[in-house]
Amino acid sequence: MTDAQAVIDRLRRTTDTVVGEADLRTRLASGRPLRIKYGVDCTAPELHLGHAVNLWMMRALQDLGHRVVFLLGDLTTRIGDPTGRSETRPALSPEQIELNAAAFLEQVSLVLRTDPDVFEVRRNSEWYGAMDVATLLGLFAHVTQAQLMARDMFRARVAAGREIALHELSYPVLQGYDSFAMRSDLTVVGSDQLFNEQLGRHFQQRLGAEPQVVITSTITPGLDGGPKQSKSLNNYIALTDSPRDKFGKLMSLPDELVETYARVYTELPLGTVAALGSSAAVGGPAARDAKLKLAAAVVTRYHGAGAAKAELEAFHRVFSDRAQPDDMPEVVIGPAPLTALELLEALRPRDSRSELRRLLRQGAVSVGGVKLTDAEARVEPAGGTVVRSGKRTWHRVRRA
Amino acid sequence: MTDAQAVIDRLRRTTDTVVGEADLRTRLASGRPLRIKYGVDCTAPELHLGHAVNLWMMRALQDLGHRVVFLLGDLTTRIGDPTGRSETRPALSPEQIELNAAAFLEQVSLVLRTDPDVFEVRRNSEWYGAMDVATLLGLFAHVTQAQLMARDMFRARVAAGREIALHELSYPVLQGYDSFAMRSDLTVVGSDQLFNEQLGRHFQQRLGAEPQVVITSTITPGLDGGPKQSKSLNNYIALTDSPRDKFGKLMSLPDELVETYARVYTELPLGTVAALGSSAAVGGPAARDAKLKLAAAVVTRYHGAGAAKAELEAFHRVFSDRAQPDDMPEVVIGPAPLTALELLEALRPRDSRSELRRLLRQGAVSVGGVKLTDAEARVEPAGGTVVRSGKRTWHRVRRA
Repeated sequence: MTDAQAVIDRLRRTTDTVVGEADLRTRLASGRPLRIKYGVDCTAPELHLGHAVNLWMMRALQDLGHRVVFLLGDLTTRIGDPTGRSETRPALSPEQIELNAAAFLEQVSLVLRTDPDVFEVRRNSEWYGAMDVATLLGLFAHVTQAQLMARDMFRARVAAGREIALHELSYPVLQGYDSFAMRSDLTVVGSDQLFNEQLGRHFQQRLGAEPQVVITSTITPGLDGGPKQSKSLNNYIALTDSPRDKFGKLMSLPDELVETYARVYTELPLGTVAALGSSAAVGGPAARDAKLKLAAAVVTRYHGAGAAKAELEAFHRVFSDRAQPDDMPEVVIGPAPLTALELLEALRPRDSRSELRRLLRQGAVSVGGVKLTDAEARVEPAGGTVVRSGKRTWHRVRRA
Repeated sequence: MTDAQAVIDRLRRTTDTVVGEADLRTRLASGRPLRIKYGVDCTAPELHLGHAVNLWMMRALQDLGHRVVFLLGDLTTRIGDPTGRSETRPALSPEQIELNAAAFLEQVSLVLRTDPDVFEVRRNSEWYGAMDVATLLGLFAHVTQAQLMARDMFRARVAAGREIALHELSYPVLQGYDSFAMRSDLTVVGSDQLFNEQLGRHFQQRLGAEPQVVITSTITPGLDGGPKQSKSLNNYIALTDSPRDKFGKLMSLPDELVETYARVYTELPLGTVAALGSSAAVGGPAARDAKLKLAAAVVTRYHGAGAAKAELEAFHRVFSDRAQPDDMPEVVIGPAPLTALELLEALRPRDSRSELRRLLRQGAVSVGGVKLTDAEARVEPAGGTVVRSGKRTWHRVRRA
C-alpha cells in the first residue's frame, strides 16, 4: 500500500501545479497501478534536462509500480502541433515519423524503465486511423471556437497578425481525446501543454470517464539564463550529451542558476542544494567548486558515479593546464617600442628565433589576452600585462 | 452551339451576383455540358417560391443540355449547417436523413427535369464516408481560422455572445470541398451560401481544379413584406401548396410587392411586369386585378394554364358571392331604436319572421360588418350603414 501523501511530497520538488490533486491522492491510495500518459509528437527528438524533469517524476512513479503509457502521436504529428510556433509547421512523412519515434524511445529509455510491467507504447493512429469523418466531427461538437482560441499561443498568433490554420486549431482537440482513448489517470507535462491536457479532462468528463490529473513541472532557465532550454537557442544540455559535454556545459552555468539546477536536475538533499546556492553567490573559486558538485551530481544521475569521478579528474587536469597561474615570472622590458618577436626574445632568451616564430604561427602567443601571429607586429605592453607563449608559459611584463 | 451571352442575359432576371462571369461565358461557349452543383442539407424540406428561383435557373440550363448534380449533404447534415441559426442544431439520425432526402427529391422534381441525361443524384458520404482523419485534417490545412470567422453569420454569433462549436466551424470547409469532389462548374445559391461556395472555389484552386462559377439569386421579401420567405415566419408559398393556396396567398400580397414577385416568380414579359407594378400602385380594384394576373401566372408555371383558369373562376365566384357590391338598395329607417329582427323586417318585408330568425341563428346577418345572432338585440344603425342578410343580400340604411 502506497503512502499517497509521501508520493505527492516527493513529486512536489519539481511540480509547478497539480490539477486534480484530491483525485491524485485518492487514486494513489487505491493501490491500483495508474496509467500515466506520456504523449509526444513524433518530430526529431532531442530531449534535454528540462524534459527529463518530467521523465524522472514518471520514473519515480514507475518505481512504485505505476505504468507509463508512452503515446506516440503519429497521427497528430502529421498535423503538426502549433505549440510555441509562430509559423505553421510542415507535415512529416510517415517514414520520418517512424524514425523519430525510434529515436524518441531510445532517449526516453535513458530515464524511464521500459520493462512491460511499467511501460507500454501506443500510437494515436490506433484510434484515429479507424475513425471516420462523422465521428471526428462528433468529437468536434464538444468544443467551441472560443474555448480553443482562449489558448494563449493562439491568442499570441492572432495578436501578431499571423494565421491559424483549421488543422492547427483541431490539434488540441485530438490531443485531448487521446486522454480518453488511452484511459489516462495522470499526465506530467510542461506548462505549455496545460491547455491541451485540460481539454483531455474536458473530453473524459464529456464522455463519461474520470478526468486525468495534470501535473505541470517546474521550468528552469536555459544555460544562458534565458527563459528555458531550447534547441533553437542552443542553451541546453541534451540527454544524449556525453558526460564530458554535460559536465562542461554545467561549469559554464551562470552562478545564480546553480541552486535552481541543483534542486531540479539532481537528487541532492535540499540542505546541500541550499549550501551550493550560497557558495555560488560568493563567486570565484567557491562558485566554481559549487558548480563542480552540481556537475558531478548530474553526471552521476545519468552516467553513474564512476563517470562523474572521471570528469572531475579531467576537469582538474585541464584546469591546471590552461588557467592562468596565480604567480608567474616577471620580466622587465625597456621603454622602446618593439615587435612581437623581440618581445618573445626578451621573455624566452633561451629559445631560437625560429622556435619563437613557430609559436607565433601556431597561435600559441597572446599579449594581454590578444593572440598575436605576426612576428613583426608592433607591441607596446603596459606594465602588468600578461604574456602567454605556449600552453604553460606565462610572464608578467614590467616596464623599465 | 449555345449563345453564351443570351443564356447569361436570361439568367440575369433573377441573378444578384455572379462570381466568375468571364469563366461562365467561356464554359457556356465551349458547348460542353456543365455540371451544376445543387447542394442541399438533408433536413426536413419545404421548398418555397424563393428556393424555386434557383431551381428555375437550373431548369433553364437543363433545357440547354446542362446537368444538375443534386448533392445530398447526408454526411454534413449529421453535423448541421449553422447558416442563419443562432443556436447549434441537434444532429439528425441516418433514418431521418434518408426520409428527408426522399422528400427533397420529390419537391425538386416539381421544377427540375430528373431524366438521367440532365440530372444526377450524389451524396457527400461518397467521399467523406471513405475519408480518414489525416486526410480530412489535410484539407483543414487549406483554410484558416480567420478566414472562417470572417463569415458574417459567425461574426454575428460572436457579437451576440453565443458559441460556435468546432464542428460548425468545419461545416463550410466540407461544403467547399464538395465542389472539388463533385467537379462543380457552377452553382446557383442564395446569398447566404456565397461564403461557403467561395470556399469551394478556394478548394478547387488549391487542389488544382478550375474554380466553380457562383451565381447568387435575387432574394424576395416574404408575403408579409418581411426580409424573406421563411418557414418559421409562415410567410411563404410552398411548392407543395395546392393551386388554391398558392392563388389565395398571392392575392393577400401587399400591393408594393406585386412587381417584384411578378419579375422573380413568373416568366411574364418584363413589360407586363412593369404594367402590373403600375396597376398595383393604384390600389383598389386595379391592384386586385394585377394580383389576379400574378397569381394566375404563378399557378400556370407550377400547375398549368388549366389550373390557373380554374382558380381564377373559383376566385370570381367566391368574390361575387362574398364581396360587397358597388351599388345596393337603400332602405329608409325611422329614427326610433329597433331590434335586430325589426331591422330585418324593414329591409326584407316579404320574408316571414321565422325565416328572418333563422338567418340570424345561422350567423348570416351583419350590421356595419358586425355579426348579429340575437333577434332582440338593440341596433341603432347610422345613415350609410351596410346590412348584409344571407349570402347575396345587401342593403344600405338611410335614416329618416
